Amino acid sequence: MTGHADTILTGDRPTGPLHLGHYVGSLRQRVELQQSCRQFILLADTQALTDNAGRYSKVTGNVLEVALDYLACGIDPARSTIFIQSQVPELAELASYFLNLVSVARLERNPTVKDEIRQRGFQRDLPAGFLAYPVSQAADITAFKATLVPVGEDQVPMIEQTNEIVRRFNTSVDQEVLVPARALVPAKGARLPGIDGKAKMSKSLGNTLTFSASPDEIHAAVHRMYTDPQHLRVCDPGRVEGNVVFAFLDAFSPDPAGVAALKERYRAGGLGDTALKRELEPLLQALIAPIRERRAALAADPAAVWAILREGSLRAREVAAQTLDEVKRAMGLAYF
Amino acid sequence: MTGHADTILTGDRPTGPLHLGHYVGSLRQRVELQQSCRQFILLADTQALTDNAGRYSKVTGNVLEVALDYLACGIDPARSTIFIQSQVPELAELASYFLNLVSVARLERNPTVKDEIRQRGFQRDLPAGFLAYPVSQAADITAFKATLVPVGEDQVPMIEQTNEIVRRFNTSVDQEVLVPARALVPAKGARLPGIDGKAKMSKSLGNTLTFSASPDEIHAAVHRMYTDPQHLRVCDPGRVEGNVVFAFLDAFSPDPAGVAALKERYRAGGLGDTALKRELEPLLQALIAPIRERRAALAADPAAVWAILREGSLRAREVAAQTLDEVKRAMGLAYF
Repeated sequence: MTGHADTILTGDRPTGPLHLGHYVGSLRQRVELQQSCRQFILLADTQALTDNAGRYSKVTGNVLEVALDYLACGIDPARSTIFIQSQVPELAELASYFLNLVSVARLERNPTVKDEIRQRGFQRDLPAGFLAYPVSQAADITAFKATLVPVGEDQVPMIEQTNEIVRRFNTSVDQEVLVPARALVPAKGARLPGIDGKAKMSKSLGNTLTFSASPDEIHAAVHRMYTDPQHLRVCDPGRVEGNVVFAFLDAFSPDPAGVAALKERYRAGGLGDTALKRELEPLLQALIAPIRERRAALAADPAAVWAILREGSLRAREVAAQTLDEVKRAMGLAYF
Repeated sequence: MTGHADTILTGDRPTGPLHLGHYVGSLRQRVELQQSCRQFILLADTQALTDNAGRYSKVTGNVLEVALDYLACGIDPARSTIFIQSQVPELAELASYFLNLVSVARLERNPTVKDEIRQRGFQRDLPAGFLAYPVSQAADITAFKATLVPVGEDQVPMIEQTNEIVRRFNTSVDQEVLVPARALVPAKGARLPGIDGKAKMSKSLGNTLTFSASPDEIHAAVHRMYTDPQHLRVCDPGRVEGNVVFAFLDAFSPDPAGVAALKERYRAGGLGDTALKRELEPLLQALIAPIRERRAALAADPAAVWAILREGSLRAREVAAQTLDEVKRAMGLAYF
C-alpha cells in the first residue's frame, strides 16, 4: 500500500490529550510508517484556531500534551519530523496563493466541511478561516510534497480538494511544481468505539482511555465497558457486535484465533462479562503501562520536548520554504 | 487632518502603469504626506492576483512599471517605504489569523466587495481569495500599525472591516496590540475624469494620460478632450460641468482665479474650445515633462529600482514581523 518513496503528511489538532482511539486510528500506524517512509507530523494549532477563535489557550496549552503522546507512543523524532503548524509560516503564505484557485462555492460544497459546520452549529457566524481550512490543509500537504495522507473515510474529500488545487496550480504555471497525494484510508475496524459503546471515542463524550491512565483507571474503564445489555446471566447467549470489549480485543489482542474462540463461546452462552473483561484488562494494562511511564518521564523535562518540536519545526520550514520558493518562482514572484 | 505621528499605509495593485488619474487621486498627496508622516507604500501584487489567478505576468510584469511611476512622481524612498506585498510574507500569516475573526456572511455583506464582484461578473466562480481580500487588506494596514489610510469614498467599508478586526482581535487577547485606522477620504474633485469625458480615467477605457506620454501624445490627448458637444460656435455659451478641460484646469492650474475667469467667459460665450485647450496644454506639458524624463532615466537602470524595492521590502518586513510577533505572543503562539 505504501512505496518506499512515499512522503507522509499527518497530524492532529491539539485540542486535548490523545487517547486509545487515536492509537488505533493513527498513532500505531505512524510508528510503523516511520520505518519505511519520510513522515511529517503536524501539530495543527493554526487549524485548531479556525473554530476556536479567541480560545487560544485551549489550543496552545495542548501542543505539549499531544507531543508527549506522540513520543510516548513511539513516534521517533529521528525518523519522523514533528512540527508545529504556526511555527512554519510558509504554510500560511502558500495557502494565501491557493485561496485564489478555489471558489467560495467549491468550499461550501465540501462534504467534510458541510458536516463539520453542522456539527459545530455554525450559521451566519461561520468564520471565513473555518470555511477555508481545506485550502490551508492543501498547503500543509503540498508544502511537503506528501504523496500519502492517512485520513478517515470522511476526510477523503479533503484530499480531492487538495489534488484539485495541485492540478489547477500546475496548469496555471504550466509546470509540475506540486505533487498530488493519495488518501491512505484505514481498514474497517480501525476505529475504536468509546468505552460507553458510542461509535466514537472522544474526549468531549468522556468515554476515552488516555495514555496517562493509571492501573486503577484502566481497571475501572474496563469494568464500566459497554457489553450486551441483554446478556443478563452467564449462561445466556451474548451479542458480539457493538460489544466494546470485543472491539477492544479485536484491536489489541495479539491472538486473533483466541478472540474468535471467545466470540464463539460468548455467542453460545456460558461466558460471563466479568470473565470476558478479565481477558481484556491485562492486554490494556500491558499496552498502556510503558507508554504511561515514558510519557511521565518526558513530561518531567518539558524543555527537552520543546527542543524536539523546535528542531522539527525548523526542519519542516526548510522543506516548506523550498516548495514555496518553487511556487513563487513559477508564478514570477521571485523578483530579486 | 493628519497629525505628526500618523503612519500611512497606501498602495496600488500593479496591473498596469499609473496615469494622471492616480496623480490627482493619490500620488500627489503621497508626495506631500511623506514630508510629515511615516508612509508605507504597497505594491499589492498578491492582492492583484486575487482576481487574476493564472494571469501572473499581468501582475508581476507591472511591479517595476508602477515603481517607476512612484519614483518619477517624487515619492522618495528615503522618506517612504515602497515595498512589494509578496515579499513581506508576514502579511499573509497575519491575514491567516484574521480569517478566523471574520464571518463569511460579513465578507459577503461588504459593500465594496459586492460592487467589485458585480463589476467583474463573478458568479459561482468567485475565488475565495477575492472574497477574503478585505481581510488581507486589514493585515496590510495593521501590520504597519497604520493610523491613516487614504481611500476613495467607495473604499471606506474596507477600513471599517479592518477596525472590526482590530477590535475583535484586541478583545480576544485582552490587550491593545493592534491599532485602529482612520480613512483619509480625498476632497471632492480629487477624481480626474477620463479625457473622453467618462467619470473615471482608466487604462481599460483607453482614456488616460500616462507619465510616459510624449509631447505629441499630450497634445493629441488635449486635442481630443471632451468639452461640451452643444458648444458649436465660439460665440455660443458653453457648459463647464462635465467639461474635461475645466476638470483638468481645476486639478492642475496654479491659478484658480484665472480658471474661474475662464469658466465665466466660457459660460457666457465667446471662448472657443481650441483657445481653452491652449490654456491647458502647457500646464500638462510642464507637469509631465520632468516626470517623463525622470521615469526614462530610472527605467534605464532597472537594477537600481529593484534594489530600492528590495530594501523597502526588507524594511517593511522588519516592521510587519514585529507586529506579527506581538500578535502571536498575545495568542500564546510563541512557544520557543
